[in-house]
Amino acid sequence: MATKAKIGVLGASGYTGSELVRLLLRHPRADIVLLTAERRAGQEMRSVFPQFSPFALPKLVSIDGLDWAKASLDLAFCALPHATTQKVVKELLAKAPATKVVDLSADFRLADTSAYSKWYGDAHHAPDLQKEAVYGLTEIHRRAIKQARLVANPGCYTSCAELPLIPLIEAKAIDLEEIVIDAKSGMTGAGRAAKEGMLFSEVSEGFHAYGVGHHRHMAELDQEFSLAAGREVIVTFTPHLVPMNRGILSTIYVRGKRGRTPEDLHALLLKSYAKEPFVHVLPFGETPQTRHVRGSNMTFIGVAKDRIEGRAIIVSALDNLVKGASGQAIQNMNLMMGWPETTGLEQVALFP
Amino acid sequence: MATKAKIGVLGASGYTGSELVRLLLRHPRADIVLLTAERRAGQEMRSVFPQFSPFALPKLVSIDGLDWAKASLDLAFCALPHATTQKVVKELLAKAPATKVVDLSADFRLADTSAYSKWYGDAHHAPDLQKEAVYGLTEIHRRAIKQARLVANPGCYTSCAELPLIPLIEAKAIDLEEIVIDAKSGMTGAGRAAKEGMLFSEVSEGFHAYGVGHHRHMAELDQEFSLAAGREVIVTFTPHLVPMNRGILSTIYVRGKRGRTPEDLHALLLKSYAKEPFVHVLPFGETPQTRHVRGSNMTFIGVAKDRIEGRAIIVSALDNLVKGASGQAIQNMNLMMGWPETTGLEQVALFP
Amino acid sequence: MATKAKIGVLGASGYTGSELVRLLLRHPRADIVLLTAERRAGQEMRSVFPQFSPFALPKLVSIDGLDWAKASLDLAFCALPHATTQKVVKELLAKAPATKVVDLSADFRLADTSAYSKWYGDAHHAPDLQKEAVYGLTEIHRRAIKQARLVANPGCYTSCAELPLIPLIEAKAIDLEEIVIDAKSGMTGAGRAAKEGMLFSEVSEGFHAYGVGHHRHMAELDQEFSLAAGREVIVTFTPHLVPMNRGILSTIYVRGKRGRTPEDLHALLLKSYAKEPFVHVLPFGETPQTRHVRGSNMTFIGVAKDRIEGRAIIVSALDNLVKGASGQAIQNMNLMMGWPETTGLEQVALFP
Amino acid sequence: MATKAKIGVLGASGYTGSELVRLLLRHPRADIVLLTAERRAGQEMRSVFPQFSPFALPKLVSIDGLDWAKASLDLAFCALPHATTQKVVKELLAKAPATKVVDLSADFRLADTSAYSKWYGDAHHAPDLQKEAVYGLTEIHRRAIKQARLVANPGCYTSCAELPLIPLIEAKAIDLEEIVIDAKSGMTGAGRAAKEGMLFSEVSEGFHAYGVGHHRHMAELDQEFSLAAGREVIVTFTPHLVPMNRGILSTIYVRGKRGRTPEDLHALLLKSYAKEPFVHVLPFGETPQTRHVRGSNMTFIGVAKDRIEGRAIIVSALDNLVKGASGQAIQNMNLMMGWPETTGLEQVALFP
Repeated sequence: MATKAKIGVLGASGYTGSELVRLLLRHPRADIVLLTAERRAGQEMRSVFPQFSPFALPKLVSIDGLDWAKASLDLAFCALPHATTQKVVKELLAKAPATKVVDLSADFRLADTSAYSKWYGDAHHAPDLQKEAVYGLTEIHRRAIKQARLVANPGCYTSCAELPLIPLIEAKAIDLEEIVIDAKSGMTGAGRAAKEGMLFSEVSEGFHAYGVGHHRHMAELDQEFSLAAGREVIVTFTPHLVPMNRGILSTIYVRGKRGRTPEDLHALLLKSYAKEPFVHVLPFGETPQTRHVRGSNMTFIGVAKDRIEGRAIIVSALDNLVKGASGQAIQNMNLMMGWPETTGLEQVALFP
Repeated sequence: MATKAKIGVLGASGYTGSELVRLLLRHPRADIVLLTAERRAGQEMRSVFPQFSPFALPKLVSIDGLDWAKASLDLAFCALPHATTQKVVKELLAKAPATKVVDLSADFRLADTSAYSKWYGDAHHAPDLQKEAVYGLTEIHRRAIKQARLVANPGCYTSCAELPLIPLIEAKAIDLEEIVIDAKSGMTGAGRAAKEGMLFSEVSEGFHAYGVGHHRHMAELDQEFSLAAGREVIVTFTPHLVPMNRGILSTIYVRGKRGRTPEDLHALLLKSYAKEPFVHVLPFGETPQTRHVRGSNMTFIGVAKDRIEGRAIIVSALDNLVKGASGQAIQNMNLMMGWPETTGLEQVALFP
Repeated sequence: MATKAKIGVLGASGYTGSELVRLLLRHPRADIVLLTAERRAGQEMRSVFPQFSPFALPKLVSIDGLDWAKASLDLAFCALPHATTQKVVKELLAKAPATKVVDLSADFRLADTSAYSKWYGDAHHAPDLQKEAVYGLTEIHRRAIKQARLVANPGCYTSCAELPLIPLIEAKAIDLEEIVIDAKSGMTGAGRAAKEGMLFSEVSEGFHAYGVGHHRHMAELDQEFSLAAGREVIVTFTPHLVPMNRGILSTIYVRGKRGRTPEDLHALLLKSYAKEPFVHVLPFGETPQTRHVRGSNMTFIGVAKDRIEGRAIIVSALDNLVKGASGQAIQNMNLMMGWPETTGLEQVALFP
Repeated sequence: MATKAKIGVLGASGYTGSELVRLLLRHPRADIVLLTAERRAGQEMRSVFPQFSPFALPKLVSIDGLDWAKASLDLAFCALPHATTQKVVKELLAKAPATKVVDLSADFRLADTSAYSKWYGDAHHAPDLQKEAVYGLTEIHRRAIKQARLVANPGCYTSCAELPLIPLIEAKAIDLEEIVIDAKSGMTGAGRAAKEGMLFSEVSEGFHAYGVGHHRHMAELDQEFSLAAGREVIVTFTPHLVPMNRGILSTIYVRGKRGRTPEDLHALLLKSYAKEPFVHVLPFGETPQTRHVRGSNMTFIGVAKDRIEGRAIIVSALDNLVKGASGQAIQNMNLMMGWPETTGLEQVALFP
């Protein structure tokens, strides 16, 4: 049996943190040796997430005062808030340059420092690392991720939209001026911070859009779609909140270009993802439900014909905490560590 | 105190039926004298809907064998399944021509008999009545409804899309080729029939689209939008199911025409609905939540700017059982009976 | 038409506050002239609760600096946090002794100052008022409420348990040593404060008990049950949280005394509540569901036979925000103001 | 690598069936070679449960016409409706006596044929097998299960009550006359049959008891508790439905006997389950939540002190589809096949 790698989870008291722990506990190559949480430092993980009561896990500690060199992590997952992240990763990599990092925040996703400043309002604290970081949507950037020391795990909304759209954009199969992405997310996407707007009684039994016309995930979409197209692409994107815990569903409206029918678009996606373990294209005309990927690292994609000639409706679904965050992060870890890509990610979806 | 009118509810064991009863019990001019339900005939309403236990209501009876002339209803609400409706209304109006009818099914919504056949697969059983029927979206067809004997209450999805779009189409303010309506509905929209796909465990904790590319409500949208435009309009429309009981939210993507900005579209809607008691246009940039209209007859409409120049995102929300069905039906009854339009419809939304 | 009374709602930004506003907006004798909210002072009510957007309401103000004499309220509802309440009510009644007060907090519920100190850990700031206050469970203390200036509206859990149990205890029909109350509440019972434990993702899709063996509502139960029994009564009480917004259901296990069968207990309750507009006893063997009282001021009570000889299972259900809080408060206002008790409380339950 | 065993799932279109498939797909020793479903015979599993789309599984077939000898299953899971089960298992074991069977229905749980007739209203079709069957609560009957050919997997409610209570009853630590079990279950416990009462809109946003005073699971409780006590035990048991998919929580009220304190009861349970992989006793005073065992084979048990001297409140939680059904069945399979008991059951709970 192979030696296990020493893995740390920075920010273990949030939902992406706990999801990393859930998956790592059953990962045959990973040994969780460090868990951090600022406000909960000194507590057991079971006090913060009682589902871990039966398991032996390191006690939560504060990042302050950690000796990164001594910790000698093989890999650190960074699930910290925006902005804090930059500082922590910068220091970590300065002290322990051999440690690999998968960052789940938005801090290293935008390669362009000016795009970063525009959307986040501040100059970046680690512009060199921002350039070094590889955008971690495995199916699109697999080769670079294998070589990377620092991977910027993509956002959940963006993953769900990019997986179906990038192959179509690369193939110049759709009109770039008319892409509408109507996205719907479960509540865990909003994190675990105590906000009035996320209370059960505020968000159950109802539905609403938010960030209409302006949402930070747009910057990521712009970057990746423009890269795929070889020119600037700007899409319409509206996020909504669904009274459910997990899942994102994107309903995407596109027009085929140069005679491409919805069936052609479907065939193109089917081919693109034929060998991918975590992207599954449904038969033409079928569309996915978020509940059928819950708890798994799968993305389901469906393509249907609109009744307006030439237009297709594409629907994609993934679990925002797995393929949209922590599962994707582990998929990247597997590549970075030279392990089989699917290791520890084989859970079947939990439905109902 | 005025004499009360004799009101019947045909099909009282479904959700639109019970919602009619809820509202009529507190309507100062209505006296519920007849409740029908085929499978539950002979039972008390409280066996079918325990919330009515404290109230005196007529026992449920079968439609078969009813003497419409003798019943001498002032008005009948018809909340029966598609196709059955046509036969029942035809016989009712033949026997009791002075009774007014508000039909909540789809049977009389399409004025064009060939459109009806195309979407529903059969010839209509009462083509004369189909022509006589007035489409019951009060804010748009108020004058005709006042004179009508038979009103076809609109569908819930269609009401939610038509209220924001018809004034814009009539004003030629938006591009008719690029309208995308992404609609989301609570589960009561699917009715009370016992279907596997509507079980709690099938539809909670998840989200999905259905009827992608083909849904019968499209026929109604086509009819009303074409009427408003003075030429054929075909829109893209995708319905989704939200794990909540009540509410429809439509996210509508439009492009302003001839220089109309999102702000212009907002101003136009604000003016159109300034005096309407049941349509409320939010300040520019704000968008509604379904929970804030729950249980009320209100429609909330919001308009926001897309980041793509010239495009606007319009969001509308209503309670599918109230303004989308039974509240709308009572609003029509009020007009048909010559009562103040808001009578019995003043409930404030129930949130949380 | 009668002049309307000047009504204030102190603490209008919480759920009991908004529920008071919902009901008062349709109350024919009430005019809302004052709304307070400390953190939201200066804002419109629609910013805090968008469902009120279509209505004209006074702007939210801070309590600090209010001139109670000048406000000359006929009645103030006090929906403020524990402890703050005592100080505010004390000052209000000092400055405006003719104003009546219905307090929805726990501050004036315990008549015994030492019981108060024991359960709440502090001496009471207004012990005279604590003695003056009348416990506001209308069906039990109607006569005293009519004469009261200050009414302490009961807790939601306690109302739900007291309504079925007090008549049985008064009639000496059940064994006082073996009462077990297993209570389940919706999430609005926990209020609107932003706490991690009340986030949607923490409390949806699961169920749990809390405060096991120790919960402040026990003090109220002790007081009212002991009063009814004429001697000290201590019951077992366990609260649980249900992933729903509104509703409390209590499953109560009792043993009949001196040969009283479950049928006898049922008959006794039926008789006790025969003329009560807001308490409805179901036929023997039927038990209620919270959803059938949602949004209404009703309490439903059912009695069934246990398979163990002599034991009965009593189930009661009410809406914690209506009969468990704001509806009960308005019922008390109606009595205190000399209006018909059911005024403004006739809403039929909203199901589904 | 060991050869895989040939496993069949009879009744694969229900929730316990799909849960078996979910777990078996990742079980290293099991090979799913047969899936049956009467109404869905001829279809792919993915049509019935889309979450299995990415996996290769045998097509669904009808049981009629199956050649059990030829199928030569090593083990069959039987997830069929009550009564049907008896006939199928009888024939299966007649034709293929070497096949082992784990039955998830209630058909073989009651060893006493007269108890069976009393609770189920019919004589048993396979009384010999009823006697042969071993009651499959592993932690209690492990030794017999290892030797069994036919195991009757326990009910979900009963497992949740028996795990905390049997050790206490065996130790004569609690009063047998005063046990009250107030149980709450998620909706999947009611199965996948299309019934009006299980529709989303009927059961969401509310809470209710059912089967009050009479529920078939009582027969199982009687059997196992009486066996543990060495004399007849009858408990009070009330089931309730929670608007969630998975999970059972039992709140159990007991009185310590012969001076046993709640702390003593806790110590006793802690000791009983110290080495059990799937039963976890929380620290004294802590009580579990269903969401923290979701998707896992764990049972969490908590013990707290009631404020009434000598009484304890015990709370237990499990996932009704895993430890309450399919996980328990696989745990039994592991024993019957001579594999490590935890094989394929190591999933960590999915929260949130």
